[in-house]
Formats: sequence, structure tokens, C-alpha cells
Amino acid sequence: MFRFSLALPLTLMAGVSLADPLPSWNNTDSKTRIIDFVETVTDPASDSYVTPGDRIATFDNDGTLWGEQPLYFQLIFAIDVIGAMAQDDPSILTSDTLKAAANRDYKAVLDGGKESILEAMKVSHSGMSVDEFQARVAEWLATATHPDTGLRYDQMTYQPMVELLRYLRDEGFKTYIVSGGGIHFMRVFAEEAYGIPPEQVIGTYTATEYRTGDDGPQIVKAPAIGFVDDKEGKPINIDRIIGKRPVIAGGNSDGDFAMIEWSTAGEGPRLGLIVHHTDAAREYSYDRDSHIGQLVDGLDKGPGMGWLIVDMAQDWDRIYTGR
Amino acid sequence: MFRFSLALPLTLMAGVSLADPLPSWNNTDSKTRIIDFVETVTDPASDSYVTPGDRIATFDNDGTLWGEQPLYFQLIFAIDVIGAMAQDDPSILTSDTLKAAANRDYKAVLDGGKESILEAMKVSHSGMSVDEFQARVAEWLATATHPDTGLRYDQMTYQPMVELLRYLRDEGFKTYIVSGGGIHFMRVFAEEAYGIPPEQVIGTYTATEYRTGDDGPQIVKAPAIGFVDDKEGKPINIDRIIGKRPVIAGGNSDGDFAMIEWSTAGEGPRLGLIVHHTDAAREYSYDRDSHIGQLVDGLDKGPGMGWLIVDMAQDWDRIYTGR
Repeated sequence: MFRFSLALPLTLMAGVSLADPLPSWNNTDSKTRIIDFVETVTDPASDSYVTPGDRIATFDNDGTLWGEQPLYFQLIFAIDVIGAMAQDDPSILTSDTLKAAANRDYKAVLDGGKESILEAMKVSHSGMSVDEFQARVAEWLATATHPDTGLRYDQMTYQPMVELLRYLRDEGFKTYIVSGGGIHFMRVFAEEAYGIPPEQVIGTYTATEYRTGDDGPQIVKAPAIGFVDDKEGKPINIDRIIGKRPVIAGGNSDGDFAMIEWSTAGEGPRLGLIVHHTDAAREYSYDRDSHIGQLVDGLDKGPGMGWLIVDMAQDWDRIYTGR
Repeated sequence: MFRFSLALPLTLMAGVSLADPLPSWNNTDSKTRIIDFVETVTDPASDSYVTPGDRIATFDNDGTLWGEQPLYFQLIFAIDVIGAMAQDDPSILTSDTLKAAANRDYKAVLDGGKESILEAMKVSHSGMSVDEFQARVAEWLATATHPDTGLRYDQMTYQPMVELLRYLRDEGFKTYIVSGGGIHFMRVFAEEAYGIPPEQVIGTYTATEYRTGDDGPQIVKAPAIGFVDDKEGKPINIDRIIGKRPVIAGGNSDGDFAMIEWSTAGEGPRLGLIVHHTDAAREYSYDRDSHIGQLVDGLDKGPGMGWLIVDMAQDWDRIYTGR
């Protein structure tokens, strides 16, 4: 009995330490830095030990956990919804933006800038309960495919990042999404795609109203923005909702700069991470001049603050979960 | 060995089923209803089984988890802070409200109504970083005592509710505070007092700003309300932050009505709970006519919707954790 009780833990320990927690990451410095950091902060004997309650990791979604080109997937959803709405009732097409959307002219909507994007979002994201909206998102996700890859959108999550999220949770981290994307949109797929439950999805939201009617009390989405979870909005929202500075924060664009800056400025060990889109062959290559996911400050100032710049082409053995 | 491996689980099971999870609750119907509900929704063989991910329980704080008379403890804190500020710089006392606060005249501030309360809150709750504010709260909590009981405020948490929170967590529930009180205020003591970590504290918040300066990036509290987590604001905030309808929701005033209404209207088993302050001898007795914690709708409509009305005098063997 004594021999047995000793042998079992040893076998389990060997299994844990030998398995590669990040199999889709190439054996480059990036992988080494991530694993070294996690092993250090979870080692009770280390000066840099972080107690489980403080192990908070926050990640942007668009361009960090899944793709965002040629335009945000949630905007493609919005345009697709407007097309479907216009089939039922063409009289809703009261502007050039909405007409372009009904023709699935993604480029025209995008070229219209912020105002066009907001109009498309408002028309497609309001006037219904959260439950109805999420049923619409689920239906779209199950059928719609990406114009370039032909994959379903939830197949365009990044395999290396899904592995990183799982690895962090295995090491006692609470993993959060902190994204410019909408909370009601992301929560439909975040748990299945990333293992992140609704209460750990932070993002932009429309104004909502509490209404009691024939369907009983419902939360209804109004045609107005409630909060934009981007730039300074990210640390502000993390303070409001989590109430702790993340130990690990990752993003891919200057919209994530303030979140990573605030996180890594905290006392003790911190890891800031930027996913740099360098892989035109397997994904897309863009940074300083991109309309979507523009990245300037992260490249210019991040390395000086010790941030890890992940080079997708070099560091990732595989890109999408669905391929 | 065979006998041993059978005997151990039986011993453990007996220990679990015989221990009283709510020792400070008298053996009345309220206790029976709570335990029956929890046992049913956590029994995989039950038609009313709720999976762990959906086991969300939300509770108001003031008057539900700790006292709120003769005025909200956070308002006492605000008044005490203004007194301390005035000692350093009497020129801040630019209104009757602030002068009354500096004299610790709680009644005068309260009688001034919403406007006076807001003024006292703004002056005491802004113009500093969240970190500085929370250090101030911690210092106050460690020393200030209640005018009636002489207890420290964190000793005036309700023992039966602390037991209920622990029992729910033991049964796989995630317990949240959803309060009209301030998030930065409550997070200072919620983990130690209730076992509820900062990320499960939902409440009212001041507007905040992200500032980078000599102290590095900080979240700074601005002199404006960001969101009032009361009445319809409670279900709206739960939808924004948790993204699920609670299975259990508890409060003590009409400020909690919408939260409990929305929660208990969800499909499947739900438990709505109202703490009714009926104990003038050991605590306070108030409901329909109270300026603090007014309770009308909960008493008139709650029972018809199946809500449990907890009678403090009858159902609780003990009131405060600190006595």
C-alpha cells in the first residue's frame, strides 16, 4: 500500500510536466517566455508567486483570439442581418449604407467610416430582447461562412490562443475576453470556442432597457451605444467589472494599448502580449497602415516595456482551429 | 482493503448529510424551503437539475447581507470622510450639507434628500485613484463603529446570510453581490466578510478616467455617477456583467424588486427571497414607511410569485456575525 500511494503521484506529476501545453506554438522564444512566466508566477517557492485569486488574464477577441479581416466578423453579421431584414421589408433601406448592406457590399459599408458602421450596428442590434438577438447570432454562426476562407466564423478562432487560454486555466488563471466586440454577440460562442463563460466576457454593449410585457420581464436592446470597450474603455471596464489589474493582458491593436499598459504597470510580475499579424500566406499581414486592427504604439513602445510581440508567421505552427 | 474503501465514502456521506448548513437559521419553513430548493436543483436525478455553470445567486448588500439603519453605512463613511477632510481644509465646507457632514450630523444630511446625499458622496468619493480611495475605506472600516450597536461595520454582516452564501458555494453556486452600494467601497470587505471576490461584486459606480502620470497609469474616480445599480438597473447590470438570469435572487427592499422579478420569471426552478426586517428588539423593524429600505411591492406581490419572505425575528436564531 505504501509503494502504491507513492507511485501514483509520481506518475501523475510526470504526465503533467512532460506534456506540451502549447503544441501549436513553434519552439521559439515566444513560447519559452510564456511558459517561463506561467511557471514562475504559479510556483509557491518563487518570489514572483501570484495567489490564485489574483491570476487574472484578459484578452482582446478580434484579431487576438479569432480573425478580423477583411472586416470585423460582427460587422459581417450586422450586414447579413440587414440583408435578411430587407427581404422581409425593403422599406427599411432608408440610406446608402443600408442599401449597400442589403447588397452584401461589405467594402462600401466599411468605406463609409464610423458613421456607416454605427448605423449598420444600430439597425441590426436593437429593437429586440437579448434572447431574440442571441438566437439570431446562433443561427448566423451555424450557417454563415467567411468570404476568403470559406470557413464558418467559429472555425476561425486561433488554435495557439485557444491552447494558451486552456493552459492558463489549467494553471489556475481566470481567463477573460475584453473586446471592442459586443457582449451579447460574443457570449453566444465564447464558451464553446474558448472555454470562457458569459460572465467572463467583457465588451462593448448597446444601451438596454428592462421591460415587462406579455413575454414576462425581458432585457431589450435599444438603438444606442451603452459603452465602447476600446482604448481607455478597456482598463476602465476591467476596473468596473473585475476590480483587479490583470497579471496577463493580450491584444493585437492600439485599441488594446491602454489595457496592456495598465496591466503591466501593476506591481509584481506581469505579462503583456501583442499578436502581430505577419502571415500573409496563412492569414493576413497588417499593422501600422491597416484600417482594421491598426498597430503602431504596441510595436513602437511595447518592446521597451517588456511586452512579448508574437510573430504569427514565425511563432505559430497552425493558425485556425477549423483547418 | 475492500471494507476500508466502502467504509470511507459512507462516513463522508453521513458527515455531509447530517451537518446543518444553516445553523443560525431556526427550524422554520424558510430554512426548509431554502434547503429543499438547493437539494433539488443540485440533484442530477431531478427534473429541476441546474448545471453548475447556471448556478448563479445574486444578493443585494445593504439590508440583505449587512445592516442599513439608521442610514446606509457607505453614507456614514462619506460623512466621516468629509469631517476628516474639513479638519485639513475647512474651506471645502461650501454648503449646509457639507457643514452638517463635518459635524457628523447624519440626520441633517439624510433629511436633505437625494441632492444632499449625492453631494456628500461626490465630495468624498472622487478626485483620487481607486487605490487611494480603497485605502481610505480600509482605514475607516478598521476603526469606525456604528452609532447604535458600537460594533465595527464589518461585524454587522448577518450571520444567517453569511451561512447561506457559504452553503450555496459549497453546492456549486457562484455568489454575487448586486447592490446599490458602490463597487469600490464594497470590494474592500466583501471577500473577507462574505467570501465574495471583487469580480463578483456588482454595484453602483462613479464615472472613472484612465490617467497616466507620475504614479503610472491609474483609474481615477470622477465627481459624477457612472451607473446606479438599483431598481431596473439591477437586472440591466446583471445582463451586462453576468449574462445569465440568476437562479436565486435575494434582497430586502423595492430596489431589489426588478432583479427578483426578472430572475424568478426565468424558465426552470428559481428562488426569490426577501429579508423582512421584523426584529425591533435585536435589529430594526421597518418596511412600508421606511426612508431607507422601503419595502411595499415585495410584500404585496412577492408571495403571489412564490417568493420566500424571510421573517428575521422568527427565522433567524442570530443576527450579526460580530455578536
